[in-house]
Amino acid sequence: MSPIIYHDISSLREALQPYRGQQNDKQGRQQRIALVPTMGNLHDGHLELVKIAKQHADVVVVSIFVNPTQFGVGEDFDSYPRTLDADVAKLATVDADYVFAPSIDAMYPVLPPPTAVLSGAIANQLCGQSRPGHFDGVGIVVAKLFNIVQPDVAVFGQKDYQQLAIIKQLVRDLSYPINIIGAPIVRADDGLALSSRNQYLSANERQVAPVLHQALQELAQSLKSTALSQQAFDKLLVDTRTRISDAGFVIDYLEIKTDELGSIMSDSTTFNIENKNIVILVAAWLGRARLLDNQLVVVN
Amino acid sequence: MSPIIYHDISSLREALQPYRGQQNDKQGRQQRIALVPTMGNLHDGHLELVKIAKQHADVVVVSIFVNPTQFGVGEDFDSYPRTLDADVAKLATVDADYVFAPSIDAMYPVLPPPTAVLSGAIANQLCGQSRPGHFDGVGIVVAKLFNIVQPDVAVFGQKDYQQLAIIKQLVRDLSYPINIIGAPIVRADDGLALSSRNQYLSANERQVAPVLHQALQELAQSLKSTALSQQAFDKLLVDTRTRISDAGFVIDYLEIKTDELGSIMSDSTTFNIENKNIVILVAAWLGRARLLDNQLVVVN
Repeated sequence: MSPIIYHDISSLREALQPYRGQQNDKQGRQQRIALVPTMGNLHDGHLELVKIAKQHADVVVVSIFVNPTQFGVGEDFDSYPRTLDADVAKLATVDADYVFAPSIDAMYPVLPPPTAVLSGAIANQLCGQSRPGHFDGVGIVVAKLFNIVQPDVAVFGQKDYQQLAIIKQLVRDLSYPINIIGAPIVRADDGLALSSRNQYLSANERQVAPVLHQALQELAQSLKSTALSQQAFDKLLVDTRTRISDAGFVIDYLEIKTDELGSIMSDSTTFNIENKNIVILVAAWLGRARLLDNQLVVVN
Repeated sequence: MSPIIYHDISSLREALQPYRGQQNDKQGRQQRIALVPTMGNLHDGHLELVKIAKQHADVVVVSIFVNPTQFGVGEDFDSYPRTLDADVAKLATVDADYVFAPSIDAMYPVLPPPTAVLSGAIANQLCGQSRPGHFDGVGIVVAKLFNIVQPDVAVFGQKDYQQLAIIKQLVRDLSYPINIIGAPIVRADDGLALSSRNQYLSANERQVAPVLHQALQELAQSLKSTALSQQAFDKLLVDTRTRISDAGFVIDYLEIKTDELGSIMSDSTTFNIENKNIVILVAAWLGRARLLDNQLVVVN
């Protein structure tokens, strides 16, 4: 069945009201609301988020909003693909219940909003360094969506690993009563992480793009299987960078962090990955597409 | 009846759950939850907030939390009066339903929290200038209390005029579904605005303190009754300052703003209060007490 679409905040809130409080489903459990925030132009990765949300809730709200405050000057806000009708048709196939597709005016009566939700150190690295202000925009729009929907559960993709970590921190620091679920990356058969921005790739670039995932997988394998000296570790990183660059990418960053995005260096000169779960994160341009990927490495 | 006291977030949330959603009271109206945030050491001003809250909701939660993040270095965080038992006894007389009195650890598992809720220009003036970071602490604790209680209504005193304006902005900018009610200032018989910090005053200082309110009232009267030249306006301000200082106060600020805390100057040199509701705001030290007061002037 096709989801019901709301463009304004008050109608959505009214529609969700019956699911709150002591309302029980047929099994006698309290009903739960899930939120899946998206910028639309949905692909199978998004639909997977909805499927996971369905497992954790009785009603699933998918927000579709290309959020202006998370785009920087010169970024692709204007050209970002907007495909609401196709999105709604796809959401019908996975039984999403409600679509929240607000206008910019509905979300931002004052733009930019004077109030800011900032995420501190965790946001000042990786994508936050190459996209100044990006996570400030994410912070405020996610806080707004949480307050509008007041969900019990919210599902975010692990492809945007740093975003997910920032949102978990936001939920803890602002005491949101929301269970944040990180959904595994959905990949094409050749390994490329699904992303709306993949459509910016030319046919040739699309052929090359899976190198990003392959390089990360192999680096993860090497990190897991070998006791590494600092030198060997540095060489692995250099080799991975070279491989990605040689394929035609312009690397924005390739970094190894603890799974909470802390430093893996036990001091400024010594690295130490023992007893730590780590994550390799990459952002790289291929043509006019900036692609993200990451790979968790569970040590031990 | 004595309110029920909760010290941890999850028990409070559980207690409030029955009031949410489609639950109706005896008149068939949907039940509403009100929040009255306080730092405890309650006086009649606080009790008035609770009475107003009772008029707008079926269940009233009073939070009592001396919030460390809104105190600066050298301020009175350590000495701020903590009187939970007496507070609870007073709340019983006005039928508050629940008291939320969390520990610092419960509110801030990480202190300071990396996530920040900043209020921009409106917070960088008046008290924000003399107490750097104060409203950042207010922003995060209010956001947390809103998320913990998820009230329909929250009541704040108009004595903290700037705080009230900041919270209204926060609710708008973060899309909180909360009706913010500003409660009139409660005054002693001699006109002094009630405040927990009044107890820092010596007996002599307490005699002098009402001058603050009297000076503001008279300034308001002059502003309302006269068509003023810039010169006459400036003189009125100087005279008011002098009167307050001569009484023994050290003035932190005395300013006239629009009721939304914007500038009343139509440009940098010309003042224009026609067709604007304005507010006179003062902060002044008397001994070791920093007293706040304000006076609305409805023009026309």
